[in-house]
Amino acid sequence: MRISELSRQSGLSVPTIKYYIREELLPAGRLTSPNQADYDEQHLRRLRLIRALIGVRGLSVEATRQVLGALAQQQATPHLVLGLALGVIPPADQAATPAQEVPFQEPREQDHAVEALVRELGWQVYEGSPARAVLADTLASLQDFGVALDWTGLLPYARLAEQTARLDLDALEGAPDPLEMAERAVVLTRLLEPALLALRRLAQESESARRHSD
Amino acid sequence: MRISELSRQSGLSVPTIKYYIREELLPAGRLTSPNQADYDEQHLRRLRLIRALIGVRGLSVEATRQVLGALAQQQATPHLVLGLALGVIPPADQAATPAQEVPFQEPREQDHAVEALVRELGWQVYEGSPARAVLADTLASLQDFGVALDWTGLLPYARLAEQTARLDLDALEGAPDPLEMAERAVVLTRLLEPALLALRRLAQESESARRHSD
Repeated sequence: MRISELSRQSGLSVPTIKYYIREELLPAGRLTSPNQADYDEQHLRRLRLIRALIGVRGLSVEATRQVLGALAQQQATPHLVLGLALGVIPPADQAATPAQEVPFQEPREQDHAVEALVRELGWQVYEGSPARAVLADTLASLQDFGVALDWTGLLPYARLAEQTARLDLDALEGAPDPLEMAERAVVLTRLLEPALLALRRLAQESESARRHSD
Repeated sequence: MRISELSRQSGLSVPTIKYYIREELLPAGRLTSPNQADYDEQHLRRLRLIRALIGVRGLSVEATRQVLGALAQQQATPHLVLGLALGVIPPADQAATPAQEVPFQEPREQDHAVEALVRELGWQVYEGSPARAVLADTLASLQDFGVALDWTGLLPYARLAEQTARLDLDALEGAPDPLEMAERAVVLTRLLEPALLALRRLAQESESARRHSD
């Protein structure tokens, strides 16, 4: 297809596509005449993934290049594809970073609590996943606000999260291509976030009406 | 208790407490001498709710005053308390606003989809709840990104949200006072939001490892 068709199908402007080519996020098309190039489905898939990484995940061009590079270099198992696309696994192994750049931090009480939660759930999750820090921060905030909810109080929420994650993964089954799977994973995970919180608010309201009105 | 003790127990500085008194969010204490006042448990509860509305929900002083006013004026049933605290129900009835200030908007296709979702679930939810617009926006974004997920695709997520909401409401049972219930509702609902999303991420990762690694 021509670049105008690539633009139409990706929803990105021609100058944006040309910028991504200059930045080597996207390979150039096959030249069919001195000033015309031909693009294929693989270009479109890659462009859609770039759009998701930059537009939905909010990555920089440089970080996007790293993720795309890691996806291309490694034996891209579906698990690795999802981890890289969603930012669970950093594109470059953090262990390669010199030690002085990652100062050692004494684990907080809440980090141990998150470890206990993950162990209790039997979850196989990356040691350095940013989501762990979010959970530890939440436990600290709840404590600051005097709310008596520790990691065991998060357990039933985590069990529901398991079911939510199963729905998410079901929606990715049958993606015909790793790039498409990565794109769908980013779009579905991120775009559904506000919707899941909105559903919880509405469900709270309905449950409150059910319990309290008579 | 003295203001210093009120400060210690609320975690708010004495100048902040005095500011809230000047702004009439908090009633003044009972004077025990010309420059000393006494505060009771009710002051502390109200102060904690103010802290949650301003510090967690991010309301302005003016909006906080309106919520507190509405809580005090009306027959505060638990359902109303929760609706006001969480912002589902506006403190002043929107119907009282002159029509020209709320321009009529043609419902989008997505608004009808959200209506169908709510009806299918049998949820009793406020017509003007901001969460409905969030759902409609999400459906529109998914469509823009070419994701084949319509309102029926949100149904299983909504069923899980119902269970999450039951856990939330369980945590509010037995609050001894409407002010405390309102505070806990704000703190639990808002502070758990990032944690719920983090649990989903971790659960996705673990589920992906389970399905895809061998």
